Amino acid sequence: MTKHDADQFTVKREPFYKEVGGEVALYEAAYARRMPVMLKGPTGAGKSRFVEYMAWKLGRPLITVASNEDMTASDLVGRFLLDKDGTKWQDGPLTTAARIGAICYLDEIVEARQDTTVVIHPLTDHRRQLPLDKKGELIEAHPDFQLVISYNPGYQSLMKDLKQSTKQRFAALDFDYPGAELEAEIVAAETGVDAKTAGKLVQIAHRSRNLKGHGLDEGISTRLLVYAGQMIAEGVNPNAACKMTLVTPLTDDPDMRETLQAAVETFFV
Amino acid sequence: MTKHDADQFTVKREPFYKEVGGEVALYEAAYARRMPVMLKGPTGAGKSRFVEYMAWKLGRPLITVASNEDMTASDLVGRFLLDKDGTKWQDGPLTTAARIGAICYLDEIVEARQDTTVVIHPLTDHRRQLPLDKKGELIEAHPDFQLVISYNPGYQSLMKDLKQSTKQRFAALDFDYPGAELEAEIVAAETGVDAKTAGKLVQIAHRSRNLKGHGLDEGISTRLLVYAGQMIAEGVNPNAACKMTLVTPLTDDPDMRETLQAAVETFFV
Amino acid sequence: MTKHDADQFTVKREPFYKEVGGEVALYEAAYARRMPVMLKGPTGAGKSRFVEYMAWKLGRPLITVASNEDMTASDLVGRFLLDKDGTKWQDGPLTTAARIGAICYLDEIVEARQDTTVVIHPLTDHRRQLPLDKKGELIEAHPDFQLVISYNPGYQSLMKDLKQSTKQRFAALDFDYPGAELEAEIVAAETGVDAKTAGKLVQIAHRSRNLKGHGLDEGISTRLLVYAGQMIAEGVNPNAACKMTLVTPLTDDPDMRETLQAAVETFFV
Amino acid sequence: MTKHDADQFTVKREPFYKEVGGEVALYEAAYARRMPVMLKGPTGAGKSRFVEYMAWKLGRPLITVASNEDMTASDLVGRFLLDKDGTKWQDGPLTTAARIGAICYLDEIVEARQDTTVVIHPLTDHRRQLPLDKKGELIEAHPDFQLVISYNPGYQSLMKDLKQSTKQRFAALDFDYPGAELEAEIVAAETGVDAKTAGKLVQIAHRSRNLKGHGLDEGISTRLLVYAGQMIAEGVNPNAACKMTLVTPLTDDPDMRETLQAAVETFFV
Amino acid sequence: MTKHDADQFTVKREPFYKEVGGEVALYEAAYARRMPVMLKGPTGAGKSRFVEYMAWKLGRPLITVASNEDMTASDLVGRFLLDKDGTKWQDGPLTTAARIGAICYLDEIVEARQDTTVVIHPLTDHRRQLPLDKKGELIEAHPDFQLVISYNPGYQSLMKDLKQSTKQRFAALDFDYPGAELEAEIVAAETGVDAKTAGKLVQIAHRSRNLKGHGLDEGISTRLLVYAGQMIAEGVNPNAACKMTLVTPLTDDPDMRETLQAAVETFFV
Amino acid sequence: MTKHDADQFTVKREPFYKEVGGEVALYEAAYARRMPVMLKGPTGAGKSRFVEYMAWKLGRPLITVASNEDMTASDLVGRFLLDKDGTKWQDGPLTTAARIGAICYLDEIVEARQDTTVVIHPLTDHRRQLPLDKKGELIEAHPDFQLVISYNPGYQSLMKDLKQSTKQRFAALDFDYPGAELEAEIVAAETGVDAKTAGKLVQIAHRSRNLKGHGLDEGISTRLLVYAGQMIAEGVNPNAACKMTLVTPLTDDPDMRETLQAAVETFFV
Repeated sequence: MTKHDADQFTVKREPFYKEVGGEVALYEAAYARRMPVMLKGPTGAGKSRFVEYMAWKLGRPLITVASNEDMTASDLVGRFLLDKDGTKWQDGPLTTAARIGAICYLDEIVEARQDTTVVIHPLTDHRRQLPLDKKGELIEAHPDFQLVISYNPGYQSLMKDLKQSTKQRFAALDFDYPGAELEAEIVAAETGVDAKTAGKLVQIAHRSRNLKGHGLDEGISTRLLVYAGQMIAEGVNPNAACKMTLVTPLTDDPDMRETLQAAVETFFV
Repeated sequence: MTKHDADQFTVKREPFYKEVGGEVALYEAAYARRMPVMLKGPTGAGKSRFVEYMAWKLGRPLITVASNEDMTASDLVGRFLLDKDGTKWQDGPLTTAARIGAICYLDEIVEARQDTTVVIHPLTDHRRQLPLDKKGELIEAHPDFQLVISYNPGYQSLMKDLKQSTKQRFAALDFDYPGAELEAEIVAAETGVDAKTAGKLVQIAHRSRNLKGHGLDEGISTRLLVYAGQMIAEGVNPNAACKMTLVTPLTDDPDMRETLQAAVETFFV
Repeated sequence: MTKHDADQFTVKREPFYKEVGGEVALYEAAYARRMPVMLKGPTGAGKSRFVEYMAWKLGRPLITVASNEDMTASDLVGRFLLDKDGTKWQDGPLTTAARIGAICYLDEIVEARQDTTVVIHPLTDHRRQLPLDKKGELIEAHPDFQLVISYNPGYQSLMKDLKQSTKQRFAALDFDYPGAELEAEIVAAETGVDAKTAGKLVQIAHRSRNLKGHGLDEGISTRLLVYAGQMIAEGVNPNAACKMTLVTPLTDDPDMRETLQAAVETFFV
Repeated sequence: MTKHDADQFTVKREPFYKEVGGEVALYEAAYARRMPVMLKGPTGAGKSRFVEYMAWKLGRPLITVASNEDMTASDLVGRFLLDKDGTKWQDGPLTTAARIGAICYLDEIVEARQDTTVVIHPLTDHRRQLPLDKKGELIEAHPDFQLVISYNPGYQSLMKDLKQSTKQRFAALDFDYPGAELEAEIVAAETGVDAKTAGKLVQIAHRSRNLKGHGLDEGISTRLLVYAGQMIAEGVNPNAACKMTLVTPLTDDPDMRETLQAAVETFFV
Repeated sequence: MTKHDADQFTVKREPFYKEVGGEVALYEAAYARRMPVMLKGPTGAGKSRFVEYMAWKLGRPLITVASNEDMTASDLVGRFLLDKDGTKWQDGPLTTAARIGAICYLDEIVEARQDTTVVIHPLTDHRRQLPLDKKGELIEAHPDFQLVISYNPGYQSLMKDLKQSTKQRFAALDFDYPGAELEAEIVAAETGVDAKTAGKLVQIAHRSRNLKGHGLDEGISTRLLVYAGQMIAEGVNPNAACKMTLVTPLTDDPDMRETLQAAVETFFV
Repeated sequence: MTKHDADQFTVKREPFYKEVGGEVALYEAAYARRMPVMLKGPTGAGKSRFVEYMAWKLGRPLITVASNEDMTASDLVGRFLLDKDGTKWQDGPLTTAARIGAICYLDEIVEARQDTTVVIHPLTDHRRQLPLDKKGELIEAHPDFQLVISYNPGYQSLMKDLKQSTKQRFAALDFDYPGAELEAEIVAAETGVDAKTAGKLVQIAHRSRNLKGHGLDEGISTRLLVYAGQMIAEGVNPNAACKMTLVTPLTDDPDMRETLQAAVETFFV
């Protein structure tokens, strides 16, 4: 792993992030002890953005892995590849992070198979080791290495949850949608629409979030609001823009669509 | 990836496409922001044709991938192949699209396993990155790259649906069968039958579409109407042509077949 | 793919086929437009024989693939094989057919996994293309290429059926057992028994077909009648020949066996 | 495939086989037409022995394959193996049989996955071909090739049965335990015990066969009687020999064991 | 397979084995006819020890395979491995045993997948052959080869049981815990504790065995008694030794633990 | 395996371990006989720490393997890897341990598939052997080798439990949370907070542990207390530190969170 390789994982520009309630200082304290951290919260509440911001702020490379249910331990740790002289070991993203002292962010770890979650155990206790069983090597994590995972409490089912022996290896921070004013500020900053339009979009989102569990699986996320703002900024009629970005993606239920469309029309005739 | 490679994905001739209701301008606005787009609608409503048309209109190469439940993330992203000097990386269609700035169209993405849907996440947010975990490379999407997926709301079941964290990454456009006049125009243009015959075929289709949910899973699509027109243009008796293309493929239920056959005979004795 | 390779798929002798009701002309019209065709009907109704006959009549090579539930898309499309210089691509039967302009007959396609059925989509619409994703090649079908599939409506269950998005890509022809006289003619021609014996065998088959759904999954097929005729032509006692070919293979239920044996004994004491 | 290879599949000595009811002539007539044959009957009724005897009588090599639920089509047809010049095709047992004109006996075919059963279809109709899809070769069966399968009706469940489209490709012969006198003759001939002892063993077996479905899954087979005879011929006390070979292997249910032991003690105190 | 290879499977020292009831002579008679033998009984009843003893007594090499549900037929029979000249066949343990004339002991065969159990069929009837399908070789078993399997009747469920067609290929011997006096003798001999202590340990075991089916899945095995004796011989307090070896390993149910602990305290205050 | 390789598994520094009740002497007696040992207890009760301490005390290398449900026998035993001269065997961690005389600690073995648990059987009885079936080698364990496994009784379900034939191969030691005073001593020593703060943290943990089974799956572990102490030592407000380390990671249930938060506020306003 050369310097150049580490460089590609550096966060080059300051990500746009607005602090909500002290989470930056709490994260800094946890990082000072290299404590593993779990970010909890719904889709689009800014978990990925936050870890990117902290990596930038702490000046550490960031390696993000989107977990999925077919991901194996080898996808994280590494594997042997064939080359002309036979097999050659190639580090996986977790191993790379442990070697170069990156922050390794495992997004939606609960989606992964259990072998993936168990493989992080020795990195998250006093050992801070990663055994590469297939290679017969035991690596010590770089002093700057830290592990962060995300977790969406709304998705977990009886079949798919982190084991207590995994959960209890992490300090945890809750994330939720930003407050109305802050969210409007974000939408305006990221799309170029005026504050008033941004405020209306946020209000529509709030109405949808009240429908969570009453016909909707999730409310409208900040990301979709940004999409709406971008369409409006491109000159699209606000009502049509909202339909395309806030209503149609969210649900196919005719009643729910009507309710959402009515909310849109309250603000954009 | 050479120029020549990109060429093979160029849409060479203008595809036959009739706009229904402003979807061309909406798509152009979304593409201007490289916003990921989801096309929703039933079989044969023209989703694939639309994306092909937009690729032609925007002058972008188009890479289409028909999703299936055995498709893995590697099928999209790429894999190592053996050659005489050992392993050689080969880009998958999604990676190729991200590199050359193509529109990548994932048809019926919901059929794929979750690892396929998760792999598109970093390409569909502010990062616009595709991590090739197995290769240890993080590629930045070409500025012209855009992701489009299709989704048939009628097919989704409890077991197989997109996760909210995936859905909320897309703006969405609804598609439905074209209006009667437009559809007749399409059938005539694609088969060479006269307007009157085309009109009759469309009327038969309309009757079948009213039976959706009352014995039929789907009504007759525009494609089947084109088949019927083609058989008639080949000199086949219209009644026999309709039986072969509009009735027999659709259902094996004797009652439904009789009902459809009666509809045919209203127009072609 | 050399000329010699295509030759091995040529149907050398005219297959024995008796037209039932205009299906030859309908198929010719469909082939003129290279329209994909689905042959529907029960086991032994002559679907495979018909497509073989049409390939012979149209002078096209025929590539038949017996589908099964473990068949993957790679089994149809092709795969990389290792040789001394590394990997070498080998076309699967569908790719070969698309290249040489053969009729490709996928027998009982519904048995295959969905990746197999999805892989045929781009070959069955206006694109007439086959993307070899693993090879990064997009091939255009030969102008003479046509796709034919078979489908047994009696077998489909809720779990295993073609998707509407697949069904609506095919014109369809129904097949059923031939009429009594024609079937007797076939049995006599294929076995060498006299017309009277052939007629008796057909009558036994008719009785069994009335039991379909009343204790039997299927009635006696023409193939089994041919077996019976062959045994009789070999000098075996007709009653014993029928027991071995018409009764014992069909069912293990003692009551159904007795009923079938009684039918046999009506004609052969 | 050299002459030497075929030799290893020749049945060198006449197997001990006692005809029950005309099955030898029926099989010979079927073989004269190379008709596929299914042997039906319970465990130990002599199906394998019969096919071995017929192969010997007809002077054909015999290739036997014990089916199992993990057997794939490749296990039957063949596969590519690596050698120093790359991949080399190796015929599977079915392909070998088709090439050298052997009788191929697929024992308990219903245990296999469906791809195995579908792969035999083109070998069992007028085509008599075996497509080696992975090799791109279509082989014509040797004129002497014949396919034989076995099937135990007692084992089939709703989940695991041959499809009608497979069943109707075979003539079928029923097998059952031999009659009492014949079975005693077999036991005496194969073990060296006297006729009286053999007769007693057969009577014990008959009692157990009456318990089939009333606490036993199967009755005592001829094979176990031969084991009992062998132990007795080795000088073991008959009661202990029967316990070890007829009672203990069959069941662990204490009541059934007592019943069987009582049957033993009726004949061997 | 060289002489040296066979040597490693020789049982070098006489295993400690106390005959219970004639099983040595019965096994010798079965081996004289090379009859396959099944050893039935609970965990720790001495099945593995018995077969090891018999191998020693008969002077035959012993190859033991611990079955498991992921074991494939290839794990038993052998597979091709790559070396610098391409693929090289390597015999599996069953093939090795068949070649060198070893006793092959498949421990808890019922745990294996069905392909493993079917693969032994041709070795367990008059053929005494092992077809290496993947290698295209048919090997004849060495005249001294014998197959032995173990089977724990308490574990079998509806889903996991030997098929009758497998069971009826074996003579069978029942095993149970040794009688009290014999067991005490074994414990004393293997640990060095005095006869009185050994007797007490056996009495504790007997109490636990009465609880089988009344809260315990199995009683205390002879092996655990040996552990207890070893701890006592190491100077550990008998009560603590029993807790660690007889109570804690067996169950986590508080009531059962109390009952067992009470049994311990009856003998060791 | 060179001296250097063994060195990497040596425990270099004395791990911090406080004995609870004689477990050190009991383990030493078990190790004297090389008896396999099972450590039972909940998450965070110190099982891993204890085995690490014993390895240090006994001066033996320690090889730890975190089990998971996708771990195969090969992951433990070893496999063939390709190099330029063909395949080369590489020992797995269990084989390495058996060769160099290490203590092999299989953490949460019950998570593994059964082939993993069966593979340890011959190492845990009088044989002390490990058959490398795929290599055709039978290795004798080094005289110093010992096997240790862990087991969390709270997690076992009907589907996933060790088989009795595995359980009865181990002596067992129970582990539980340390007593209040000892636990406070540990927290203080590992974090640097004063004794009073440590005591408060332990009291919060005790309250949570009483909720086990009444809304919580597990109580707060010692590890989380250490996290809380670390955050406080970093200058974070104790209430916020406890929320982040003791409340948020443990549960998402609003009522339970309130209860836990109330417990926190009893000690840290």
